[in-house]
Amino acid sequence: MPTYLGPNQYGKAENRVVRITRDGATHHIKDLNVSVALSGDMEEVHLSGSNANVLTTDATKNTVYAFAKEYGIESAEAFGIHLARHFVTSQEPIRRARIRIEEYAWERITQAHSFVRKGQETRISEITYDGESWQVISGLTGLVVMNSTDSEFWGYVRDRYTTLKETQDRILATEVNARWRFNWTDGDEAGAPQWEQSYDEVRRHLLEAFAGTYSLSLQQTLYAMGSRVVDSRPEIDEIRLSLPNKHHFLVDLAPFDLKNDNEVYFAADRPYGLIEGTVLRDGAEARIPVTD
Amino acid sequence: MPTYLGPNQYGKAENRVVRITRDGATHHIKDLNVSVALSGDMEEVHLSGSNANVLTTDATKNTVYAFAKEYGIESAEAFGIHLARHFVTSQEPIRRARIRIEEYAWERITQAHSFVRKGQETRISEITYDGESWQVISGLTGLVVMNSTDSEFWGYVRDRYTTLKETQDRILATEVNARWRFNWTDGDEAGAPQWEQSYDEVRRHLLEAFAGTYSLSLQQTLYAMGSRVVDSRPEIDEIRLSLPNKHHFLVDLAPFDLKNDNEVYFAADRPYGLIEGTVLRDGAEARIPVTD
Amino acid sequence: MPTYLGPNQYGKAENRVVRITRDGATHHIKDLNVSVALSGDMEEVHLSGSNANVLTTDATKNTVYAFAKEYGIESAEAFGIHLARHFVTSQEPIRRARIRIEEYAWERITQAHSFVRKGQETRISEITYDGESWQVISGLTGLVVMNSTDSEFWGYVRDRYTTLKETQDRILATEVNARWRFNWTDGDEAGAPQWEQSYDEVRRHLLEAFAGTYSLSLQQTLYAMGSRVVDSRPEIDEIRLSLPNKHHFLVDLAPFDLKNDNEVYFAADRPYGLIEGTVLRDGAEARIPVTD
Amino acid sequence: MPTYLGPNQYGKAENRVVRITRDGATHHIKDLNVSVALSGDMEEVHLSGSNANVLTTDATKNTVYAFAKEYGIESAEAFGIHLARHFVTSQEPIRRARIRIEEYAWERITQAHSFVRKGQETRISEITYDGESWQVISGLTGLVVMNSTDSEFWGYVRDRYTTLKETQDRILATEVNARWRFNWTDGDEAGAPQWEQSYDEVRRHLLEAFAGTYSLSLQQTLYAMGSRVVDSRPEIDEIRLSLPNKHHFLVDLAPFDLKNDNEVYFAADRPYGLIEGTVLRDGAEARIPVTD
Repeated sequence: MPTYLGPNQYGKAENRVVRITRDGATHHIKDLNVSVALSGDMEEVHLSGSNANVLTTDATKNTVYAFAKEYGIESAEAFGIHLARHFVTSQEPIRRARIRIEEYAWERITQAHSFVRKGQETRISEITYDGESWQVISGLTGLVVMNSTDSEFWGYVRDRYTTLKETQDRILATEVNARWRFNWTDGDEAGAPQWEQSYDEVRRHLLEAFAGTYSLSLQQTLYAMGSRVVDSRPEIDEIRLSLPNKHHFLVDLAPFDLKNDNEVYFAADRPYGLIEGTVLRDGAEARIPVTD
Repeated sequence: MPTYLGPNQYGKAENRVVRITRDGATHHIKDLNVSVALSGDMEEVHLSGSNANVLTTDATKNTVYAFAKEYGIESAEAFGIHLARHFVTSQEPIRRARIRIEEYAWERITQAHSFVRKGQETRISEITYDGESWQVISGLTGLVVMNSTDSEFWGYVRDRYTTLKETQDRILATEVNARWRFNWTDGDEAGAPQWEQSYDEVRRHLLEAFAGTYSLSLQQTLYAMGSRVVDSRPEIDEIRLSLPNKHHFLVDLAPFDLKNDNEVYFAADRPYGLIEGTVLRDGAEARIPVTD
Repeated sequence: MPTYLGPNQYGKAENRVVRITRDGATHHIKDLNVSVALSGDMEEVHLSGSNANVLTTDATKNTVYAFAKEYGIESAEAFGIHLARHFVTSQEPIRRARIRIEEYAWERITQAHSFVRKGQETRISEITYDGESWQVISGLTGLVVMNSTDSEFWGYVRDRYTTLKETQDRILATEVNARWRFNWTDGDEAGAPQWEQSYDEVRRHLLEAFAGTYSLSLQQTLYAMGSRVVDSRPEIDEIRLSLPNKHHFLVDLAPFDLKNDNEVYFAADRPYGLIEGTVLRDGAEARIPVTD
Repeated sequence: MPTYLGPNQYGKAENRVVRITRDGATHHIKDLNVSVALSGDMEEVHLSGSNANVLTTDATKNTVYAFAKEYGIESAEAFGIHLARHFVTSQEPIRRARIRIEEYAWERITQAHSFVRKGQETRISEITYDGESWQVISGLTGLVVMNSTDSEFWGYVRDRYTTLKETQDRILATEVNARWRFNWTDGDEAGAPQWEQSYDEVRRHLLEAFAGTYSLSLQQTLYAMGSRVVDSRPEIDEIRLSLPNKHHFLVDLAPFDLKNDNEVYFAADRPYGLIEGTVLRDGAEARIPVTD
C-alpha cells in the first residue's frame, strides 16, 4: 500500500460539566467544557476498522463526569491532570492524552446559591501527558481591552501600497488571546503551581501591562504584556499572545462642518491587523504551538 | 395590479459608534451599535424605483456619527430620541422612525483611559417616534444566571407522552432576555426618566428577584421578576421576559457505583424549554411586540 | 396586586429530529429543528407556581419524536399541523399552539443512503392553530444572491448628512429572508397546498425575480420579488421580505496608479442597509408579524 | 533582560475581496477572504516600538486589492503565490510570508451576471514561502455528510466507565474538515498543479470514499477518505482530516408503545466524538500542522 498513517488522535470533545460543592448553605460552582484527545497504538482501527484497542469516546465522556464526582474540581488544571494520568496509565494502547478545558466564571448574586455569569473572557487550559512528562498550558480568550489614548503609530516602511497616515494619538483596542506554559513537568503534585491564584495574577498582570504601556506599536504592547508575565511569575516560562488590532477609525466629520477631536470612532469588524508573538524566559524553548 | 405594498421600513443597521469624552486625563466611553429604520411615504421607490422620497441609508449612518459629536451620548435612550426626532421632523416623507441600540459595557482597568469589556449581557433600547407619540423600550440580553437549589418541579399534567420525573431540588438556570416599556410618551425631556439609573436599578431587581424566589416553575420566577420591576419602578408599565430553561441534567453515575447527590450535572444545549411572558401594571395595555 | 399577566407562551424549543424513511435500499431523509410554543389557561403557574395546567416542555419534546414515528414527516408543514392540532385538541387548558420548524436540505451523493448537506439557505415554517383557524407561514433564510451589474442608485434626497455618490452600475447583493402566508385556514387537509412543490416554486420565483429585475433601488427589487410570488402562486396571499444590502464597495486603486473598472470590490460586514417590506394580494390583510 | 522574543508574525487578516471578470455580458466572480501573516527581522518593533522594519498591515491589505486588479484571481492558490512572493522579495526584513484564503462558491442563477451562494462548505488554502521553498496546503471545511446505514460499531475496549451498547447499524454523520499538501515546492509555475481542477477532484474523491466505505469505525472511514485522495492525486503527498462524529441517537419510543426501527433520531450538538488523522504517501513526511 502506497500510503501510511501519520499523526492521529481521538476522543470526546466538549463535555459540558457543572460541579456543585456544598459548604453548608453556601454553594460553590465549577463550570467546564472538557475535551479529551487520546493517541497511541491505533493503526488497526484506521486500517481494518478493528476497535480492539479503542476506548470509546463515550467512555471518555463518562470518565469526565465520574471524575467530577470522585475527585471534585479544585481547578481545571488539577482536574485535567487527573484525567490525563488516568487514560495513559489505565489503557496500555494509549500513550498520550491531551485534555483541553474551557472554564466559565460565575460570581454570586445576593444569595448563597445564586450566581451570575461573569466577564467576557473564557479561561482555558491544556494538559498533555505522554507517560513521562507533563505539559500544562493555561490561558484565556476573549478579554477585550481598550486604551483611549497613549498610543502612536508612525515611522514605518513606505512602499508603493502604503497609504496609511501616521498618527500620534489613536485608540488601541484588542481582544487578548493568551496561552502560557508552566515549567512544572514532573507530575509532582506537591510542587505544582497554585493554579487558581496563578491565573488570577497572570490576568491582572496582562491587564496592567496593557493599560500601563505607552504604545508605539501593538507589537511593543504585546512584548510588554508577555515579558511582564514571565518576569513576575516564576512558574511560567513561556507565553504566546494573539492580539487582533480592533481598529477604531476616526470618522471624517468635515463634510458636516464638524471637527472630530478624537471623539467619534467607527469600530470596524474586518479586516483587522493580527499581531502574534511568543515571549520566553531566557534559556527556555518555544513549545506552545503556533495555531493561528 | 393585483398586489399592493404593506408595512415596510428601511435604514442603516448596525452602525458601530464609539464616543470618547474627556474629563481632563479621565476618559469616558460609550460603545453602541445603532440601527435606524424609517417608514413613511415610500410607495414610489417600491413600485417604480424612484428614490425621490428616499433619504439614503448612508445618510442615516452619517447622521448617527455626526450626532455623536454634536449631542454626545449621555445615554443610549437620549441619543436615540435625538435621532428619531431628527428623521421624522426634518424629512417630510418620513412619518415614523425606530432607533434600536445595543450598548456594550466597559469598566476601568487601573488607568484613567484604559478599559476592559464588562459582563456577559448587552443593554438594548428601542425608541419609536411617529411625530406625535414616543415609545421607549429598554432591556438587556444575555444575562446568564443560576440557582443551584431552591427550585422544584412537580404536579404537572401527565399525558401519554409524559415521562419526566418530578423533582424537589433542581438547578434552575436561564439567560435573561428582558424588554421593559416606559410610560414616558410625550417627548418632554424635562420629565424623562433617568435612563442610566433606571437601567441599573432594573438590572438589580431582576437579579435579586431571580435569586430570592423559591421556584416551583420557571413561569413563577418569570412573574416574580417582572412584577418586582413594575412594582419598584414607577416609570415602567410593562416588561416582557424570554427565559430559556438552560437545562442542567443530573448525570447518572450509578453504572460506576457512584452516588450523585446533586453534585455533577450535564449542561445541555438543545432542546431547551422556552418560557415567555409579559407583566403589566394594572390598567396598562400590552404593547411590547411578541417577537420570539 | 398592582400587576397582571399579559401575553405568554411556553414549550420546548429546538428539538432536532432526523427521520429516515426506507424505500428498499433507497433512503429518504428529513432533518428538522422543531420548536413548540403553547398558550392558554396559564394564570396559576405564573402566580402560584401550580403546574396543574402545565403539559411539561419535556412531554412536548417527546411528542415531536413520537409523531415523527407515528405520522412520518411528509413535509415540515404537514408535520407541524399534526403537532399543533394534537396540543390544542388533547389538552383542555391549551388554547393555542404555534409550531416553528427549520428544515435543512440534503442531496444524495452516489449511493442510495449517502447524503451531503445542500445549499446555504434554511427552510422555515410556522404553523399556528387556535382551535378554530389555521395560519401557515413558510419561508427561507440565508439565501445569498448577487447581481454583478444591472443595478443603479441615484435621484435620492440630499440633506446635510448626504455624501453618497450616485452610481449607474453597482453590485447588488443580499441575503434573502422571506416569509409567505398561505390562504389555507380551514384545516381541510384535502384542500391543503402541496407544501413541498409550493416551496420549490416560490424559491425559484424569488431567484428569477431577483436575477431578472433591472434595479433602481433594493426596494424595487423587493417588490418585484414579492409580487412575482403572489402573482404566480394562488395559495399565497402575503409575503414579507427582509433584505440586508450586502454592500460591495469599489476599492479606490488610484493611489497605486490602477484603474478599477468595476472589477475589485471590498465586501463589507457592518453597517448594512436593511430593506424590509410586505407584498399583499389585493384584498388581503397584512398578518405576518414584523419582527426585525 | 531575562526574557526574549520567540516565534512571531503579523499582518492584516480577513481582507474580503470580490473580483468580477467580464467576458462580454457573462461575468465571472471570485469571492475570497485573504489573511496575510509576515515574519522576519522584527526584534526592534517588539522591544523598542521602532517601526522601521514594519510594512504596515494596512499596506498588506492594499496589496491584496491592488493585486486582485493587476493579476486577477485565476485561483486562490495562484493569487496567494503572487502575494507571498511579493512580500518576501520586495521587503528585505520580511523573510517569510503565509497567505491564508477562504473561498466562497457561487453558481449562476438564470442570467449571465446573477449568482447564488452555493453549498455549505468553504474552500481554504494556505501558501507559505520563505524565500527558498514553497508549501501549498489546500482544503475545505464545513462539508456535512451522512450515511444512513452501512456503519457498525462494536468490539471496543470495555473499562469501568464503558456503558455504550454495540451496534450493527447506525447513522454515520460528520462535517469534513480537510487540508491536503501539494508536493509542488519549487515555485515553478509551469509545473504547478491545476489548482481548480485538483480541488474539484479531491472534493469528489472525499465524497465518494465517504459514501462508498462500509464503516466499522469513523477512523476507518477517515483513512479510506485520505488514502483515496493520495492514491488518486499524484500532486498531493499528505492529507489531514478532522471529523467530528455528529451523533444521531436513536430515540427510545418504547414508553409510548412505539417501535423505533432505525427511523427517528435525535441529532445531538455536544459532546461529540472528534477523530483526527493524517494520511501520507509512502516516503513523505508529515508537515501539515496539528491545530485541533
